[in-house]
This record gives sequence, structure tokens and C-alpha cells, in this order.
Amino acid sequence: MRNPIRPTDNEARQLARELLLPARYGALGVCLPDGGAPMVSRVAMLWLGAPMLLLSDLALHMKALRADPRCSLLIGAPGAKGDPLIYPRITLQAEAQEVEKAAFRDEWLKAAPKTTLYYDFSDFHLLRLNVRQAFLNGGFGKAFQLGPEDLPLDI
Amino acid sequence: MRNPIRPTDNEARQLARELLLPARYGALGVCLPDGGAPMVSRVAMLWLGAPMLLLSDLALHMKALRADPRCSLLIGAPGAKGDPLIYPRITLQAEAQEVEKAAFRDEWLKAAPKTTLYYDFSDFHLLRLNVRQAFLNGGFGKAFQLGPEDLPLDI
Repeated sequence: MRNPIRPTDNEARQLARELLLPARYGALGVCLPDGGAPMVSRVAMLWLGAPMLLLSDLALHMKALRADPRCSLLIGAPGAKGDPLIYPRITLQAEAQEVEKAAFRDEWLKAAPKTTLYYDFSDFHLLRLNVRQAFLNGGFGKAFQLGPEDLPLDI
Repeated sequence: MRNPIRPTDNEARQLARELLLPARYGALGVCLPDGGAPMVSRVAMLWLGAPMLLLSDLALHMKALRADPRCSLLIGAPGAKGDPLIYPRITLQAEAQEVEKAAFRDEWLKAAPKTTLYYDFSDFHLLRLNVRQAFLNGGFGKAFQLGPEDLPLDI
């Protein structure tokens, strides 16, 4: 069977930037406690030098990450027309690590002013995703595997 | 800590229908072989009496499902304005099971004519998701936990 992964080039790195830097949310995959089944949910995400998530203790994904920090984040939304699979998306394979919420408050709220409503709630936490690998799909026949060095990480 | 899950009512069941029946894609979470880390990717999905996925052998999620059929599918896209978390979505917790692709060909292609390009390719397979549980989120403070009996399943 042919290998569908293309060699990473600057076009792929540029597409990854275009998907990641403006993102405001993603589909987060975690392993559920008691068995490790996967669960996917929509989460608030911003790229602040690295992918950052704002999560509540009330959510099952937060409980799951406390038990197993491995996660996956799918970024990118299809357009309204045509096959949803022709539209680019990127999946980050990462480990989540809690960071000091107060230190990122101004930067987060500038980019996502609507979250002022709940950013300071004590059950909300800020987590950085330490990315190990990324799968970029630019549409059919355009699959790439990226490393942290190919992403716009600056911390 | 308060329990954020509300009792399931007909409004919740109706919202689940509105999300599931017109869906054309979803964010699929699987457990990767060699360790069970989660991975999320965009997949083609249609509701044909149950959630059905059209997946290629070339994709990592298909290899993963062959090793562990447990999966999670997030359905629903946020609107363009405001906080992405105010928009409803539903997560299906399921097990994937391959079904006979030819038996669903007409129904699938009627709903997703663009996939005529590759539906018959030998590396593409049709999988039904046998849903065990669903998490519905209608926006902040509107979380529900649904069972198969609350969903528009007819097979």
C-alpha cells in the first residue's frame, strides 16, 4: 500500500500557520479514565506562542487530562460548499500542561474578549499543549506529518 | 462541585436530531495503536438510520479502529460570531463496525454526491457507529447526557 505522506515543504509549514494562528477553538480528543476510550469535545483554544486551552473542572475532558495528559486537537473548519474533506485541517498530538492563568490573562482576553465572562472563574484553568507531532491534511492527496520544528512555536 | 448535567427532556432530544440528521462530517477520535494516545481527525459522516463513516485504509484512524473499535464523534460547527462555545454540539461515544458498502451506496451517494469520486475505491470502507452514549452541549449551562434511546436511531 502506498505511503500517503508527502515530504514536508514550506508550503505545508505555511498552511499549518494559516490554520493554527487564527484558531479560536478546536476538537479536543482525550482518553477517558476507566478504560481509556477516546472522547472528543469542542474547546476554547488560542495560539499564544503555543496552543493554549481554557478548560473548566466541570468538563469531563478536564478530569480526563488530569489522569492522562495525552491529547489530540483538530483545528480547521470546512467551507459550506462541496466535500468537507477538500478543506484543510491539522491535528496536533500533544501533552497538556497547566500554566499560570493570570500570566496570560491580558493576551487571552485581547484575542477572545467574550471569554471575559468566565476567564477568572476558579473552575477554569489554562493549559498549554506541548506538541510532539502534527498531521496536516490540505485535502485529498495532500497529507503531511510535521514536527514541532515545523510549527510557529515560540516558547 | 455541582453536577452540570441536566435531566434529558424533549428539547434536548430535538436538538440532538437537528445536529445529527443533516451532518456531513465529524471530528473522529480514536485510540492510536502502540500506547492508546487519542487522535482526532475530520471524517466523512452521514446519518443513514445510524451514524455512518466512509474511511480509507490509507488513513491512520482506519488502522486504529481495526485495532480498537472504540471511538468518539463530535458533530456540530460553531457560527462565525461570538464565543464558539455558545453553539450547540454533540459527542457520540461508540464502537465502529464495518458494514457492506454496496448495500448503502445509493443512499450515501444521494446525500453526498461529491463522494461518487471515491466511494467505490477498494481502500474505502463504510463503518456504522454503534452508539453507547452521547454528550449534548447546547451552550453554557446546557449539558445533557443521552442514551441510544434518545437518538434518532432506526437500525
